[in-house]
Amino acid sequence: MIRITRRIEFSAAHLYNNPKLSPEENRRIFGKCNNPHGHGHNYTLEVTVAGEPDPVTGMVLDLKELKEILQREIIERMDHRFLNYEVPELAGQIPTTENVAQLIWKLLEPKITRGKLDRVRLYESPDLFVDCTRNGAA
Amino acid sequence: MIRITRRIEFSAAHLYNNPKLSPEENRRIFGKCNNPHGHGHNYTLEVTVAGEPDPVTGMVLDLKELKEILQREIIERMDHRFLNYEVPELAGQIPTTENVAQLIWKLLEPKITRGKLDRVRLYESPDLFVDCTRNGAA
Amino acid sequence: MIRITRRIEFSAAHLYNNPKLSPEENRRIFGKCNNPHGHGHNYTLEVTVAGEPDPVTGMVLDLKELKEILQREIIERMDHRFLNYEVPELAGQIPTTENVAQLIWKLLEPKITRGKLDRVRLYESPDLFVDCTRNGAA
Amino acid sequence: MIRITRRIEFSAAHLYNNPKLSPEENRRIFGKCNNPHGHGHNYTLEVTVAGEPDPVTGMVLDLKELKEILQREIIERMDHRFLNYEVPELAGQIPTTENVAQLIWKLLEPKITRGKLDRVRLYESPDLFVDCTRNGAA
Amino acid sequence: MIRITRRIEFSAAHLYNNPKLSPEENRRIFGKCNNPHGHGHNYTLEVTVAGEPDPVTGMVLDLKELKEILQREIIERMDHRFLNYEVPELAGQIPTTENVAQLIWKLLEPKITRGKLDRVRLYESPDLFVDCTRNGAA
Amino acid sequence: MIRITRRIEFSAAHLYNNPKLSPEENRRIFGKCNNPHGHGHNYTLEVTVAGEPDPVTGMVLDLKELKEILQREIIERMDHRFLNYEVPELAGQIPTTENVAQLIWKLLEPKITRGKLDRVRLYESPDLFVDCTRNGAA
Repeated sequence: MIRITRRIEFSAAHLYNNPKLSPEENRRIFGKCNNPHGHGHNYTLEVTVAGEPDPVTGMVLDLKELKEILQREIIERMDHRFLNYEVPELAGQIPTTENVAQLIWKLLEPKITRGKLDRVRLYESPDLFVDCTRNGAA
Repeated sequence: MIRITRRIEFSAAHLYNNPKLSPEENRRIFGKCNNPHGHGHNYTLEVTVAGEPDPVTGMVLDLKELKEILQREIIERMDHRFLNYEVPELAGQIPTTENVAQLIWKLLEPKITRGKLDRVRLYESPDLFVDCTRNGAA
Repeated sequence: MIRITRRIEFSAAHLYNNPKLSPEENRRIFGKCNNPHGHGHNYTLEVTVAGEPDPVTGMVLDLKELKEILQREIIERMDHRFLNYEVPELAGQIPTTENVAQLIWKLLEPKITRGKLDRVRLYESPDLFVDCTRNGAA
Repeated sequence: MIRITRRIEFSAAHLYNNPKLSPEENRRIFGKCNNPHGHGHNYTLEVTVAGEPDPVTGMVLDLKELKEILQREIIERMDHRFLNYEVPELAGQIPTTENVAQLIWKLLEPKITRGKLDRVRLYESPDLFVDCTRNGAA
Repeated sequence: MIRITRRIEFSAAHLYNNPKLSPEENRRIFGKCNNPHGHGHNYTLEVTVAGEPDPVTGMVLDLKELKEILQREIIERMDHRFLNYEVPELAGQIPTTENVAQLIWKLLEPKITRGKLDRVRLYESPDLFVDCTRNGAA
Repeated sequence: MIRITRRIEFSAAHLYNNPKLSPEENRRIFGKCNNPHGHGHNYTLEVTVAGEPDPVTGMVLDLKELKEILQREIIERMDHRFLNYEVPELAGQIPTTENVAQLIWKLLEPKITRGKLDRVRLYESPDLFVDCTRNGAA
């Protein structure tokens, strides 16, 4: 079994605030990310699919098909959006890299039918990223 | 004369909208950037100072001093901010990369006193950046 | 005056051979690049336009318009092509980074009408690139 | 057990075409990659070896030895080559990133005798890469 | 379970020499790295922690806390240091990337109490890196 | 006229200390860089040559020749060296990025005979670099 990874980018705004906490606690825990106006990032997303290359095409999956899935599920939902207000699946959650990566896993997993979704890696910046994997292994 | 460049990063949200234009014109001209909730970027800023190395230190300028200037003038003003609402110097302007880069030039130029500010390069993403230079030369 | 730069990528094959030279001379001068089957690169192209931001839009040029120009003039002509055989403008030339960059300048210069084309930088790899500029200045 | 990874680069041309399919099918499945003249890439290869550091040298393997293996097995075979016509081990296969990565695994696995080959990662571009691993785990 | 990774950088000097070997053997095994004056690198360190996001914060761990741990355990110990002479934990060892990565694992593992340290990746350069993982899996 | 740039890397150690200053002044001015044991970097050097492509080869200069010049003048002199003690041309100077870049200019300028050396850019890290240019223009 081998793995193929496609990388895409999107830009989004967000802010961290838990309404069940006091303003002071929110500021202490989330620091600058608690700014009520929000801030933003160029996110980089790596989507990894595991499978066997098709002997006819030499490919684990149809990259054009994957591109369409990523366009429909991720880019149209998140690109140039304010994650807190415009992504209904994140309602009631803090849009941390952890939570956004988990949402991306949930959105993509049922759509990948050639091979299996194996890993979602989401970079908030080159210095901070989160991995979700099928079985919890690295 | 030689040039020394320091690179820093900040994260900010923004949106493009000109209130003198109709909603349709705004959408046509600015596309996704016109989303009223805003979106965001990891900006990368390169600040270039031209001068002669000091024979005592071998350095064009004191990098600790430059770091403090960048912290005070840029990071505190723009990092984890929504540029349209939180940077008063951008009031009435569209916070395009062009306009933000020009503001950064104006903010830094009088503060650089060892050597001269020579170029400000602002990346909105690895694929789009703007240069402001002292004399308009490349 | 300020400068805005857009970066795009394309993939192409090429080979270096001057039919006026002997096979031995071609091999000595061009080394591995003389392989008659050809080889290839992921090229990265930076296109820089100089101008004044439009007060209505805050932008030197319409990035959607630039994208269309780059698609039509560069991507459709060079992406996933064998430069020696499929780019008629390179006929009779060796498709070195120098010559391809100069062709890109000639193709883009008359098409950029908002602002002026100021620099074309073409990377053959992260370790080798060529700059063409309006006036020969850096 | 720890893992050490060495990264190298090579440039090659290729094209995707399955002679058992009609020209229309080939164009539909492979798109631009079906261009009969071919195109090319700067490939980046990461080779990971797992083992225990030798107490005398502090190293899992002799990096000079690994360099020679990579030179002989990969660079001389693939660098500045047209993969379809010049790499006999790919005869009858479509030189997709998947198939080239699997060939690299087969070429290197028996040559790595200090430690064990653990992963081969092949980037066709920064946005597309394939992993082959010893046991199919990530 | 998900994984979050923070990347930091530090600069250090080192040299490779085993006093139990003859000067000739040291030179043969370590090559340029045996230069008795030493040389140096910009090291990049990726620290990965595995855990479950806290439902209150949406985060696996407190990034400010992790930053303090990395500052105290790694930056203060290794940044702008000569590893052979200034890091007592490396005494009697050759400061190869393998040994430095293993030391970093030992230093960080007991300090990470929210989630578990899962992987330490240390780059000596973009082309050479070492991974230490909890269970030896990739 | 066009410009071609080749990028290479080398690793070196250094420290900043001016014997004419007191230990306190050295520490205040140079901070961590004053550590008497030294520290180090992966330097990246970009060498730019300006000229006209030769009509026979399509190239501004012979890249194999440039490679040999860079090997002889820079790599052999500086790679895996402690700059303060092993580069005689830096004797009596503080090996700041400014001074090392100026030395590189002086070493390369007379050796480049096809085209003219136009710019030397030396990165001490991705976040700090120095440019020396022929005429002081950017």
